[in-house]
Amino acid sequence: MRAALIQQIDQKTKPIGALGRLEALALQLGLVQQTQQPSLQQPTMLVFAADHGIVAEGVSPYPQAVTAQMVLNFLNGGAAINVFARQHGFDLHVVDSGVNAMFQPHPMLVDAKVGMGTVNFRHQPAMTAAQCEQAITRGAQIAREAIAQGSNVLALGEMGIGNTSSASCLMSVLCDLPMHQCVGRGTGLSDKGLQHKLSVLTSALQTHHVSAADPFHVLSVFGGFEIAMMVGALLAGAEGRCTLLIDGFIATAALLVAAKRYPQVIDYCVFAHCSDESGHATMLSHLNAQPLLHLGLRLGEGTGAVLAYPLLQSAVAFLNDMASFDSAGVSGQIQ
Amino acid sequence: MRAALIQQIDQKTKPIGALGRLEALALQLGLVQQTQQPSLQQPTMLVFAADHGIVAEGVSPYPQAVTAQMVLNFLNGGAAINVFARQHGFDLHVVDSGVNAMFQPHPMLVDAKVGMGTVNFRHQPAMTAAQCEQAITRGAQIAREAIAQGSNVLALGEMGIGNTSSASCLMSVLCDLPMHQCVGRGTGLSDKGLQHKLSVLTSALQTHHVSAADPFHVLSVFGGFEIAMMVGALLAGAEGRCTLLIDGFIATAALLVAAKRYPQVIDYCVFAHCSDESGHATMLSHLNAQPLLHLGLRLGEGTGAVLAYPLLQSAVAFLNDMASFDSAGVSGQIQ
Repeated sequence: MRAALIQQIDQKTKPIGALGRLEALALQLGLVQQTQQPSLQQPTMLVFAADHGIVAEGVSPYPQAVTAQMVLNFLNGGAAINVFARQHGFDLHVVDSGVNAMFQPHPMLVDAKVGMGTVNFRHQPAMTAAQCEQAITRGAQIAREAIAQGSNVLALGEMGIGNTSSASCLMSVLCDLPMHQCVGRGTGLSDKGLQHKLSVLTSALQTHHVSAADPFHVLSVFGGFEIAMMVGALLAGAEGRCTLLIDGFIATAALLVAAKRYPQVIDYCVFAHCSDESGHATMLSHLNAQPLLHLGLRLGEGTGAVLAYPLLQSAVAFLNDMASFDSAGVSGQIQ
Repeated sequence: MRAALIQQIDQKTKPIGALGRLEALALQLGLVQQTQQPSLQQPTMLVFAADHGIVAEGVSPYPQAVTAQMVLNFLNGGAAINVFARQHGFDLHVVDSGVNAMFQPHPMLVDAKVGMGTVNFRHQPAMTAAQCEQAITRGAQIAREAIAQGSNVLALGEMGIGNTSSASCLMSVLCDLPMHQCVGRGTGLSDKGLQHKLSVLTSALQTHHVSAADPFHVLSVFGGFEIAMMVGALLAGAEGRCTLLIDGFIATAALLVAAKRYPQVIDYCVFAHCSDESGHATMLSHLNAQPLLHLGLRLGEGTGAVLAYPLLQSAVAFLNDMASFDSAGVSGQIQ
């Protein structure tokens, strides 16, 4: 299949390699779908939202209430992810993985609440092993439902005040990097706020005994409910041979956990964007990942993933629709 | 207008600056259109095609006939630019600026032939001053026609075996850089071919007496008919307050010429993509331009410009459609 796809790409009316990253993308999409005519069906954006006990330590410039407020903003269609999902025809679902508020039923909302937010992991594990397993299982189930509805492209986004702190700790353990390489400003911490966050997270890391060899345990200690659900959704998505659109710092941290357990999941991942959040570029290079976009976004919600989607459409379109040198009667190289 | 737009962007439900490059893009589009509700109307791709006498020196691995063959491929809808233009709803016109072949009339084809290709500029100027003026004027006219049809986004592409040689010479003179920094592999020269091209172009540069202070003269000596028409189209597009989507090495070389004469044209330009063609990155930094995409394309045809278009749509969409903190009832920063 790989050889057939490469030949197909090289026969298109363009110099060899002249479509750059789109050629590698077309090859990957063909391999994921095991076909020379890949197609993208009903792209789905799952935005997982949850609250984090660690915010009690003052690690975010925004109050915890913003998580629930932004969930309502999603449901009302007013957030960035709504705008971009509409633009690119994504089916958008907002998953309450564990927000510290109760919501009225809404067609866009999936109730998957594991709790009213995690415990402050400065002193105790963020969640129990049972909660972690529940979240992974539920995330996988939600992804399978999207696949059953006809989607073969899953993009994962998130909302959760404090969740860059979780992601930084996961990164530090799973990539074996010192905390200062893993911590960033999140939604916009000052220099002083950043120093405080670093000190809180360094202390938390020293408190707990974790090993990268047991990624789901690391996840239960430092994770969030939304991150654990993303882990499950990534694994179920790969199992269902979906293309997985990987967004920013939090989504990539979920992938770190998933890939530590099942490295093959990476074959299904398209890395959409390198976030402006300090640490994301390092995290991506740990995964040998080359993101498609570098737009300096640091918003989460899955925005980077959705913005990269038209490039996937372009890769599929040129593979399926461009003429070949033979069919178009165009001469090849003379030298 | 600038202050109003910045306030509008900062009131959206996201941390300040969290949409990165899209925020600067939204500001620029608002300024170009002088409105807080910019909109993108009937994007138009003009692909200018022409032949180049310099190919007699063996500077391209492809035969000159490929220019005409690719024009037919465009008219048949089989080239990369057709695929991407269809994907993003561009109105596509192919302009015969001076191809060394005659074409049957076709609805997509604009007959603007200045000649059957330029003269080999190794020894003589590529075109006369009159031809250069004719090409600039005709390019401007074609852009004005697109604007009259309702377009406010113009993207310029090109096809012309040998045209990286023209662009390299324009760059060397107008950016005052040694030729080796301006020459690249084009459609795929070998190391030996690249050395030969460098030697041919260095010799051509020594033959002619040109000055960066007279950019239209430089254009007539080293340019191509398609490049001269792009210069005219860029100037008329800016005059018509269009957003100008700048593609790769050749399109940026045309902008170098236009901007040397009328620097304000740059305010209307969105730099779409940094080409894999050696020299383009340097050319872009000479213009202080930060391209949106880095996909390693080196195809021309306007492909990079069209691929960046959905990001312009996203910038406009978030500016027009996202909720504000006030309207959505979302809390601001506490620190």
